[in-house]
Amino acid sequence: MVTYKLYYFNMKGRGELIRLLFAASGQKYEDFRIEKNDWPEYKAKSPFGQAPYLEITNGKKTMILSQSVAIGRYLARKFGFAGKGDEEQAMVDMYGDQISDLLNEFAKFMMEQDETKKQEIFQKLQNEIMPFHMKFFEAKLAQSKTGFFFDSGLTWIDLYLFNLLGLLGDQRNQLFEHFKAVKNLYDKVSEHGKIKAYLETRPETAM
Amino acid sequence: MVTYKLYYFNMKGRGELIRLLFAASGQKYEDFRIEKNDWPEYKAKSPFGQAPYLEITNGKKTMILSQSVAIGRYLARKFGFAGKGDEEQAMVDMYGDQISDLLNEFAKFMMEQDETKKQEIFQKLQNEIMPFHMKFFEAKLAQSKTGFFFDSGLTWIDLYLFNLLGLLGDQRNQLFEHFKAVKNLYDKVSEHGKIKAYLETRPETAM
Repeated sequence: MVTYKLYYFNMKGRGELIRLLFAASGQKYEDFRIEKNDWPEYKAKSPFGQAPYLEITNGKKTMILSQSVAIGRYLARKFGFAGKGDEEQAMVDMYGDQISDLLNEFAKFMMEQDETKKQEIFQKLQNEIMPFHMKFFEAKLAQSKTGFFFDSGLTWIDLYLFNLLGLLGDQRNQLFEHFKAVKNLYDKVSEHGKIKAYLETRPETAM
Repeated sequence: MVTYKLYYFNMKGRGELIRLLFAASGQKYEDFRIEKNDWPEYKAKSPFGQAPYLEITNGKKTMILSQSVAIGRYLARKFGFAGKGDEEQAMVDMYGDQISDLLNEFAKFMMEQDETKKQEIFQKLQNEIMPFHMKFFEAKLAQSKTGFFFDSGLTWIDLYLFNLLGLLGDQRNQLFEHFKAVKNLYDKVSEHGKIKAYLETRPETAM
């Protein structure tokens, strides 16, 4: 029997894609949330000194996997959310990397401490970067028969974009006025049976 | 029969991982190098308006794949450079994402136009960011029996790190004084039969 333990902070951030994959699959795991003060202890266990990381135990063998998207892709393959066949998986990966590019830009905004710089980044994010990426997602999603990125059904990139949209807070509704298929994806993931149950019970966190 | 056409500029940059994978596999492809003036025409063909992108034609079906790492991972799976089994592939992906993090930091330096800011980024890169990442790569490579990241042999991340080290220019030698296993990887990839032949004939480009 394989057991999973996820190490991350008490926030959605880069860890939530992994939690959403566990939720969608119904696979049990330990959702361990590291207290800030205990971080040095857990940092030492992480392959690159970063969180999230996932401890996977199979009998006597334990593997620790880091990098949220690498973890997400691994679980997606295990649980059937990676896309059907090599070509679709490659296309899923392509959109995944594009969402990562956007998330990295968004992270700059989240991490910036200087209030003036933070406002500058926000303006650029809102007026340039966000619409640039969203127009591609909108175009793909608008063609979809299922409302997800790919007609074969839910994949990890639907959950990945869903979480990013969740992190946007009030900004989201403004975006949804212009990107209807993106809004539809957000609603569709929210209403997905197992995801819905998870969203109703997950800890409330600011980000 | 499948045919491949790679669209990228006349530089190594983010396209070279793909060229190295074609070289290592011996698979024929068209290495199309876009002239700056012609970019608007080719930009319109790209899924996200970015290069590199790969046109894959299989009989009457054509697929265009973008995002260099998604392309690299797809080809690596086709050509047998993705790692053996789901778990090793996940570990390969994890190191791949870590190399991408470093490449993204390096790209900030390359893209910066302001000479003062460029120097600041360079100092941080040299003194903090580069050693931070290299110590993890060194630790992994120092344990290796083959000199590559994984004992099963050459994978795409060996080529990915090799190219990043290539982009560093003279900086590389200074780094190699402290990271011997990384130097060994660089030499080993350089001497790999098919790669060596490719390196001897590839176009000379500044970056």
